[in-house]
Amino acid sequence: MTEPLFLIPLWADLLAVGLGGVQGALFASGFVGQRRLDLLGVVIIGTVVGMGGGLIRDLLLNVELATMQSNWYLLTAVAAALLGMLLANTFQRLNAVIVALDAVVIGLFGAFGTSKALAIGLPEVPAVFVGVCAAVGGSVLRDVFMGLPVAIMHVGSLYAVAAAAGCVVLALSHAFGAPLLAAAIAGLIVTTVIRLLAVLFDISLPEQRALYRRKVAVETSSIPIVRP
Amino acid sequence: MTEPLFLIPLWADLLAVGLGGVQGALFASGFVGQRRLDLLGVVIIGTVVGMGGGLIRDLLLNVELATMQSNWYLLTAVAAALLGMLLANTFQRLNAVIVALDAVVIGLFGAFGTSKALAIGLPEVPAVFVGVCAAVGGSVLRDVFMGLPVAIMHVGSLYAVAAAAGCVVLALSHAFGAPLLAAAIAGLIVTTVIRLLAVLFDISLPEQRALYRRKVAVETSSIPIVRP
Amino acid sequence: MTEPLFLIPLWADLLAVGLGGVQGALFASGFVGQRRLDLLGVVIIGTVVGMGGGLIRDLLLNVELATMQSNWYLLTAVAAALLGMLLANTFQRLNAVIVALDAVVIGLFGAFGTSKALAIGLPEVPAVFVGVCAAVGGSVLRDVFMGLPVAIMHVGSLYAVAAAAGCVVLALSHAFGAPLLAAAIAGLIVTTVIRLLAVLFDISLPEQRALYRRKVAVETSSIPIVRP
Repeated sequence: MTEPLFLIPLWADLLAVGLGGVQGALFASGFVGQRRLDLLGVVIIGTVVGMGGGLIRDLLLNVELATMQSNWYLLTAVAAALLGMLLANTFQRLNAVIVALDAVVIGLFGAFGTSKALAIGLPEVPAVFVGVCAAVGGSVLRDVFMGLPVAIMHVGSLYAVAAAAGCVVLALSHAFGAPLLAAAIAGLIVTTVIRLLAVLFDISLPEQRALYRRKVAVETSSIPIVRP
Repeated sequence: MTEPLFLIPLWADLLAVGLGGVQGALFASGFVGQRRLDLLGVVIIGTVVGMGGGLIRDLLLNVELATMQSNWYLLTAVAAALLGMLLANTFQRLNAVIVALDAVVIGLFGAFGTSKALAIGLPEVPAVFVGVCAAVGGSVLRDVFMGLPVAIMHVGSLYAVAAAAGCVVLALSHAFGAPLLAAAIAGLIVTTVIRLLAVLFDISLPEQRALYRRKVAVETSSIPIVRP
Repeated sequence: MTEPLFLIPLWADLLAVGLGGVQGALFASGFVGQRRLDLLGVVIIGTVVGMGGGLIRDLLLNVELATMQSNWYLLTAVAAALLGMLLANTFQRLNAVIVALDAVVIGLFGAFGTSKALAIGLPEVPAVFVGVCAAVGGSVLRDVFMGLPVAIMHVGSLYAVAAAAGCVVLALSHAFGAPLLAAAIAGLIVTTVIRLLAVLFDISLPEQRALYRRKVAVETSSIPIVRP
């Protein structure tokens, strides 16, 4: 722990926030019509997904919230959410884009969370915990705000598993002497690849499937079939 | 930033807590019968609405939680919630009271949040973010505790917009040299007036409408119309 | 407040985490089949219940999160959740075990929360608030993650009342000169006994009843009774 305090470069943190914002807005845009999510609602979700991971990370570490120290975080999140919303019509057909973005976002937030925790001096196990919470926290907040079942509890286990695997690889390789940057890159790759493989292996999109199931359940209960 | 650290006077903070407690209890009392919210449930919601904004503000600022430093916050919130519950029968008919109280509460929490953030030295954009989170945070927690759709996502956009407008006015006028107190008062007025105008312009109450809609949906699904 | 800083012994904190983890996993296992909670979901709930109370406590106190300072917290929570899951088939028939564990867990988290707050120098009222939030916080998070109605709002009032009673006894006896350890033990006993008596007095299990009611409501709405 004699290395200097790890500082996530602003551009890298903003990249995660921006990708999260785009992904969140794309996800939320899929609900326009069903749940009457207005434009502001989509922007709120994009912002929550983009900024949630970093906020949760720093709350758990009890350090100054990096997200609050610069004008750029919120501006990036909102701009990314607007971009995601504008591109939703195009991207919605390419569901692969949402999933791929998502895999990179949880990889980035997991790697940032675990490496910042290790740099601050936390033991390996809580450092992994911080990384996983940072990785999945944005999506948990998203689901709570949207009134959806929390994805990581039901169909999204792959989520938490992928995040945890990457964070464990990061913490272990750091414990065995790898420099933090290299360990973080390894962790990012592990999380992203596991998440992508999990989705490919399932062929369809786990989260989307869950949403359809929900929709069907609602329709079933509100349109009773009557046979005289 | 050479001005002395901004300290929100205790009476002002308690005023916001008290108004929030009354408003939360009035809101929650409207559900007795439908959702079997008992008396303690109403008090919990009043307390959550009264204290939530200040807690979220100070968590985001990573400072000592003001709400935890004095006996008066919780006592005020609980007393206000009890008052709101007792007066619910009278006030429930005057829905305007709930809406008006609410407009003042989000104005107060928004102004306190943004001005405390600016006083601590945060840049303008995150200061606005803290103010908006403080303003709407209590209602988000309320909705999560009550199992309602998060209002700011659906019908309550006016909420977040009103809060953001006031906080932006505050931050901008402070940036252009206005004293923090004057800027805070301007922000409070802007938020409250926009919120009230938004409700008047819509004639009916956005949140209440959402609740009725929900109630109707439940009835529709549980009382199927059968034509032999 | 001249006594040395109160430090909750690691074994005691881990005991609360472990019992919470077992209880959370037992609770969550009851839903397998109905809500398709997979194994990881059960472990997540166990971890959330085991670690939630301590995290909320330290966030409210704005101190270093004890749960993040040692490898043992997460390891204990996960191991306890796995144990709870494995034993669920046996214990589920003994619902009393879930309720009894739960009573002890809220007693422990309430006592730890209030006494740590008092040791740090918080006034009595917020110290009680921290204790109650630590006691019920894990179950609130559990309900949000599982998409259940927040128990303390509906059938679980006994919960918050029992926690508050124990924390008030703790704070009062400390204010009247009792050593913190003795006060904490008194608070723990009061909470646990009230909670157990409340359940016994109701004969059936409040939370389970709520879940059955929910299940029945869903069935009612999806299987309309048709009389030609």
